[in-house]
Amino acid sequence: MEQEERLAKQFAFALEIDKEKRIARQTYCSDGVTLENDAEHAWHAAMMAILLSEYANTPVDVLKVVKMILIHDIVEIDAGDTYAYDDAGLATQAEREQKAAERIYNILPEDQAAELMALWKEFEALESAEAKFAKAMDNLQPAMLNAASDGRAWKEHGVKLSKILKRNIVTEEGASLLWQYGLTQFIIPHVEKKNIQDDIAQ
Amino acid sequence: MEQEERLAKQFAFALEIDKEKRIARQTYCSDGVTLENDAEHAWHAAMMAILLSEYANTPVDVLKVVKMILIHDIVEIDAGDTYAYDDAGLATQAEREQKAAERIYNILPEDQAAELMALWKEFEALESAEAKFAKAMDNLQPAMLNAASDGRAWKEHGVKLSKILKRNIVTEEGASLLWQYGLTQFIIPHVEKKNIQDDIAQ
Repeated sequence: MEQEERLAKQFAFALEIDKEKRIARQTYCSDGVTLENDAEHAWHAAMMAILLSEYANTPVDVLKVVKMILIHDIVEIDAGDTYAYDDAGLATQAEREQKAAERIYNILPEDQAAELMALWKEFEALESAEAKFAKAMDNLQPAMLNAASDGRAWKEHGVKLSKILKRNIVTEEGASLLWQYGLTQFIIPHVEKKNIQDDIAQ
Repeated sequence: MEQEERLAKQFAFALEIDKEKRIARQTYCSDGVTLENDAEHAWHAAMMAILLSEYANTPVDVLKVVKMILIHDIVEIDAGDTYAYDDAGLATQAEREQKAAERIYNILPEDQAAELMALWKEFEALESAEAKFAKAMDNLQPAMLNAASDGRAWKEHGVKLSKILKRNIVTEEGASLLWQYGLTQFIIPHVEKKNIQDDIAQ
């Protein structure tokens, strides 16, 4: 029966993505001790999108943003988490993630596989208002946690200010007011404390 | 400045809810070993709402359902997780959670506190189509994981079939086709394996 098969595919995908809870990120939770995982991060960034959508530079379709955020790390089930400031990992990331997307999304019925794959690609392209705002949340959420955990992750990875600023160009494009807030509240104080390496002071 | 104060309240709430990642549930992930936490559960159930909304008995506003699911366990930061089949805990749950909601949601600016509190109360009342569908996801997600982890949580807690059926009346009201699927795929096989105690076979 066709409907039974559709349901079986949808539940198979729902079960497969459970593995995202075992993908550790390089961000400490606010307790300063526990590394966050991808599922927790997706939940947290989606909550921030719901709370902060009023600040999007261009009005956004909030459901679309939330969907993008909830799915954006599913590829890491196969491809693993690539740390935002790991240049070697970043070089092979796109290829590894594309392969992962093809395997995982195709567990779904064809129409839903195509829909979620398109949404993920739109997120990755960072061109639409929704993708830029979703990425702004994806960036601000760990910045907030890093600041709350006394900059531990920044210190451990020797993160440089120039990298943070480059990575967050899209945060400003998505929500400039939120970027200003994040810069002054989360980043600058940790440059001053030397938890972030200041490589751009004259 | 008014906007600065609004932002500070929104980010204070965003940081506070990070604690939801440390609230363990009584459900094992599909690895059969790790107990799921509230943030992971919310992410997973929200994903299922997005994947399965076509089966809602009454068409639902998907964004509203997703918001309900993402926030529904925030009260457990103060009130703790009350296991679905713990009668003693259930007796005091409503009061504990109401108190928690008042403290936590009121970290937000007034308008957002009122909005999220109303959404949480609507979810708890289980009357609207969105609340019923959200609760259906909240019930089906752990049933799927319990089945995938060989019924470990059901066995450890000695869960009775009558309790499962009673708890899932609302699942059927929200999405009867999904309940039929869950009953035949997740519940019945584990009654047959005696992982769930059959207290209703005559």
